Amino acid sequence: MTVRIAVAGASGYAGGELLRLLLAHPDVEIGALTANSSAGDLLLKHQPHLLPLADRRLQDTTAETLEGHDVVFLALPHGHSAELAEQLGDDTVVIDCGADHRLTSADDWKRWYGGEHAGSWPYGLPELPGQRDRLVGARRVAVPGCYPTVSSLALAPAVDLIEDEVVVVAVSGTSGAGKSLKPNLLGSEVMGSASAYGVGGAHRHTPEITQNLSAAAGRPIKVSFTPVLAPMSRGILATCTAQLKESANVRVAYEKAYANEPFVHLLPEGFWPTTNAVLGSNAVQMQVTVDEDLGRLVVVAAVDNLAKGTAGAAVQCMNLALGLPETAGLSTVGVAP
Amino acid sequence: MTVRIAVAGASGYAGGELLRLLLAHPDVEIGALTANSSAGDLLLKHQPHLLPLADRRLQDTTAETLEGHDVVFLALPHGHSAELAEQLGDDTVVIDCGADHRLTSADDWKRWYGGEHAGSWPYGLPELPGQRDRLVGARRVAVPGCYPTVSSLALAPAVDLIEDEVVVVAVSGTSGAGKSLKPNLLGSEVMGSASAYGVGGAHRHTPEITQNLSAAAGRPIKVSFTPVLAPMSRGILATCTAQLKESANVRVAYEKAYANEPFVHLLPEGFWPTTNAVLGSNAVQMQVTVDEDLGRLVVVAAVDNLAKGTAGAAVQCMNLALGLPETAGLSTVGVAP
Amino acid sequence: MTVRIAVAGASGYAGGELLRLLLAHPDVEIGALTANSSAGDLLLKHQPHLLPLADRRLQDTTAETLEGHDVVFLALPHGHSAELAEQLGDDTVVIDCGADHRLTSADDWKRWYGGEHAGSWPYGLPELPGQRDRLVGARRVAVPGCYPTVSSLALAPAVDLIEDEVVVVAVSGTSGAGKSLKPNLLGSEVMGSASAYGVGGAHRHTPEITQNLSAAAGRPIKVSFTPVLAPMSRGILATCTAQLKESANVRVAYEKAYANEPFVHLLPEGFWPTTNAVLGSNAVQMQVTVDEDLGRLVVVAAVDNLAKGTAGAAVQCMNLALGLPETAGLSTVGVAP
Amino acid sequence: MTVRIAVAGASGYAGGELLRLLLAHPDVEIGALTANSSAGDLLLKHQPHLLPLADRRLQDTTAETLEGHDVVFLALPHGHSAELAEQLGDDTVVIDCGADHRLTSADDWKRWYGGEHAGSWPYGLPELPGQRDRLVGARRVAVPGCYPTVSSLALAPAVDLIEDEVVVVAVSGTSGAGKSLKPNLLGSEVMGSASAYGVGGAHRHTPEITQNLSAAAGRPIKVSFTPVLAPMSRGILATCTAQLKESANVRVAYEKAYANEPFVHLLPEGFWPTTNAVLGSNAVQMQVTVDEDLGRLVVVAAVDNLAKGTAGAAVQCMNLALGLPETAGLSTVGVAP
Repeated sequence: MTVRIAVAGASGYAGGELLRLLLAHPDVEIGALTANSSAGDLLLKHQPHLLPLADRRLQDTTAETLEGHDVVFLALPHGHSAELAEQLGDDTVVIDCGADHRLTSADDWKRWYGGEHAGSWPYGLPELPGQRDRLVGARRVAVPGCYPTVSSLALAPAVDLIEDEVVVVAVSGTSGAGKSLKPNLLGSEVMGSASAYGVGGAHRHTPEITQNLSAAAGRPIKVSFTPVLAPMSRGILATCTAQLKESANVRVAYEKAYANEPFVHLLPEGFWPTTNAVLGSNAVQMQVTVDEDLGRLVVVAAVDNLAKGTAGAAVQCMNLALGLPETAGLSTVGVAP
Repeated sequence: MTVRIAVAGASGYAGGELLRLLLAHPDVEIGALTANSSAGDLLLKHQPHLLPLADRRLQDTTAETLEGHDVVFLALPHGHSAELAEQLGDDTVVIDCGADHRLTSADDWKRWYGGEHAGSWPYGLPELPGQRDRLVGARRVAVPGCYPTVSSLALAPAVDLIEDEVVVVAVSGTSGAGKSLKPNLLGSEVMGSASAYGVGGAHRHTPEITQNLSAAAGRPIKVSFTPVLAPMSRGILATCTAQLKESANVRVAYEKAYANEPFVHLLPEGFWPTTNAVLGSNAVQMQVTVDEDLGRLVVVAAVDNLAKGTAGAAVQCMNLALGLPETAGLSTVGVAP
Repeated sequence: MTVRIAVAGASGYAGGELLRLLLAHPDVEIGALTANSSAGDLLLKHQPHLLPLADRRLQDTTAETLEGHDVVFLALPHGHSAELAEQLGDDTVVIDCGADHRLTSADDWKRWYGGEHAGSWPYGLPELPGQRDRLVGARRVAVPGCYPTVSSLALAPAVDLIEDEVVVVAVSGTSGAGKSLKPNLLGSEVMGSASAYGVGGAHRHTPEITQNLSAAAGRPIKVSFTPVLAPMSRGILATCTAQLKESANVRVAYEKAYANEPFVHLLPEGFWPTTNAVLGSNAVQMQVTVDEDLGRLVVVAAVDNLAKGTAGAAVQCMNLALGLPETAGLSTVGVAP
Repeated sequence: MTVRIAVAGASGYAGGELLRLLLAHPDVEIGALTANSSAGDLLLKHQPHLLPLADRRLQDTTAETLEGHDVVFLALPHGHSAELAEQLGDDTVVIDCGADHRLTSADDWKRWYGGEHAGSWPYGLPELPGQRDRLVGARRVAVPGCYPTVSSLALAPAVDLIEDEVVVVAVSGTSGAGKSLKPNLLGSEVMGSASAYGVGGAHRHTPEITQNLSAAAGRPIKVSFTPVLAPMSRGILATCTAQLKESANVRVAYEKAYANEPFVHLLPEGFWPTTNAVLGSNAVQMQVTVDEDLGRLVVVAAVDNLAKGTAGAAVQCMNLALGLPETAGLSTVGVAP
């Protein structure tokens, strides 16, 4: 079986990572590559690391260009997916790396993104309770945000053991911001500097983490979330803490939750995750402990924001949607140092 | 008035930063520079950025070498200060950049550092309530740890407004670890990677932050502290959160606390601190907000761990001890980009 | 004597560095700060490290705003200096950090920059033979380019000893490119990557290096120049090689050339320059050797592109122009690590 | 066919990269992993990115442990390969990532490394004229040094067109120095800094580049080589220049030389190589031009020092030695950004 795929938004970081992974996928043939303002350019101009596609040119992002593929990956700014997806029809699997179909609450969508809610699609984090089944055979998938991926996986196994409020501070590389030409993303500004943004609950990933943890807990969980930009291209390291209800062997809960998960790896005691160990891989590495003086759970988890945090998850979801082996084309091997 | 100073531990990062600042101090003459295993070396070998001292050689760290100076700065591994200080006598001001005399509780010392407690000295964070007076004319000063400096200043103005538990996640550059030859501090490991350490309350700065905030609050404050290493040489960005007791105008509390402080700068609303803006400077830049959904205070503060976080504080304390202008030789101007 | 200065282009990197240095200058009072598209902004938005100027607002760059100052520093894109300077009159010292008045040959200007040549001004590299005298009392100064500064100083003492062709490969931090919003300058692109640009003699600093070395040699020197962008904000490390005419003690030539220069420092044998040792300082650190197998001179020199490479040189030239001590407000102490 | 391999030196960077590549090789089964001082450790401690091998322990590096494998990769300090290789016998293919068997001249070996020359093995750079044939079916292979790989490939196609002296300045990431615990390799020193080393022809890769280019030219070529350390973990960007004998269409020579090479990629005109585009890949990206003012060839080439520069070349040579497809397990796709 050969799956013919297209990527809309192939000039960006998520698009590039999708192509990097799909080039290594045994069952995939790469079809149309589209962009917006870069249409007409050689892909090489935007993705110089993808030599096997060096001769390809970017086309316009239109339904005509994308239709006829088995799977279409959308790596577009939010607000652009719904209309395209409708035009593509149900014979095409559409996997949306954007935010449009992640939130189940129309109110949340309105508050955080504005405009009309396009509805929610099966949520592409199969490691969360109950999600994998909804992804098998799906024709539409909403790929989670990078911060929600790592934060939700870091805390979901503990929701029954903790109080209702969690604090997440997640250090991220700059590729999460995409190729936006903003002064604060210039190399001269980024190198040697750490900075917080979206502080005080202002980041759009807050409601997504809240949604995931509340669903896992079966009760409302409140999330204090602060993202911090660090001088690295890729990677998120999330420090997640919460008050424990009572003394509990939290390690057992994590071992149980992820024993059979191919991509979530609880490290042996004494080892702590680093982002370079997951660079380019689909793995989530994590470690848990309890601050005994405070009775507080502390989980540290690392993920590659572009891989398992975006494009790797998208490929994993494609595999589930099409009935391929879930790990096809994906790896838990990072590129280090 | 010319103050003749000596630096013990002049080959390390704290020692180098002390000398960088003291070279620009209008009232200081630089005397003996000592080291341990590097004694005999040209200073240039270890501090190639200090050209005016390029001809100096490092001497052995002994009381004989250090005595006779007006001020002796100790930048030594913990456990080495007490004995040296005793030998120097009270006619010499001793400013200890190490941990030996920071903790007031002998039990805390024993638990976190081991061995016998050497007693506590006036604590060199004049911006904390009541501390400045104890530093004026002091003959012995314990310079605070870098994390406690930024965390304590970030939360002290709010202690009356918050519940008893605070969560601090602080992203730090690698110079805080000194020149230790450890594999995880190699450039190849550090660049492109974030990692947490001392997780679960295991870092020795935890009791120091707890001591400061509890003293400021007049009641026990519990501190969940996680340091995260980021790929930069200098700088700490601390994200500090705590549940508010009730709705309060926290900004007013911060404005009031730091209105007359020359080095602590509450940014105008809408601006957030970055570590490169304080690089090389003695400033602490901070911003406060409230996560209204949670009723939670969030403070983000930036400091240069080597400057205001260590050597700058040491110079500030020297100024107070000797009756010099507190800001002499210090600046709020960072080196950016 | 208090010198009242203005900076045109105060929102950029060169402008920010000028202000950083001028804030520490004992004889300077900072007047108007102007910008182009950022006029009206708080300076803090663009220069968050300059806290003493945090309340200042940027004004429009016009002759009206700039006139009436003793010294006006221009940190503008090329092509904007001549007209402004004419309007300012000779009672104002104008120090141009841009390229407009560096090249003496109108043909060179036309070829490399295009348009009409605005004429040449005294060239602000006093360490080159014969230049200091022209700067004393000057009313107009052309500050050298960053690459020409380090390359010319690295090779000028050897011009009589070498053949007519030199090869310079200079590794630079990204701040040399300014705050231009170009995709290749984004942090995500820059970090972890080295890249050459302007290869094959295409960089505009080539004719300026050629001009300097040919003038020093009294004969045409040909320059193969390749700049390489490296993942750091500041600093240039230039590797400069040339065939020696005959065996010569090159070290003596360098010692002689720079014995009395306050900012050019030939390192002791066995030490090699690094860019972080000159960060923020006005020093040039260099080392020379001979590849005996080839009879080839190799000079490695480090400079901070924003400091001695631009703004530090500008301040040094102001000092010479006004008859202040040449080193006033400048330092050979770097900020490391 | 399944090839059973062992890696000696599995705790280092070259060893880790070998394992990363071999885990993705379709025909390989990973056998013994050995180390020196780290024997007994979990591999995870040293290679946290290799999750599929997380349970493996490092064994002692002895012939007993290594024998019985089809292929043994040696990633050891120089001087350790010859004796081990002798003990292993000819039924084992031995691929040496170290320097011991690269140089053909015993005099060169003695001068640059000291001690007795262990003899030379087929040289693992199949893209050089005449080398591929010697690698097919070989039982012993000497993997080239990282700098010689990129420098030789950048200049070999031009040897008939240029004068006898070439100048190479190569900017390298720090992983090329291995995990050596040296102060100048600490992250705090490396970040934000560029530095040259082995200046003046003192680097041991100089004779290897000389050997390769002289062999390709059929006459002695003199090499001026300067390596520069830059703040990145991986990657080499080499700027290689040489005087052209006469005006020549150099591009044609490069197109011809590499038209059928799977891993050497001459970029389209107008594109220049960057090291992040080859990160983790076995590709060499290059561009050529002529500085017309000087009649000088300039070639810029990028390689991942650990991949095509070491471990990727080793796998490529294993493929050739065993008669597998040369590209098996290797890719020209980099990990960017």
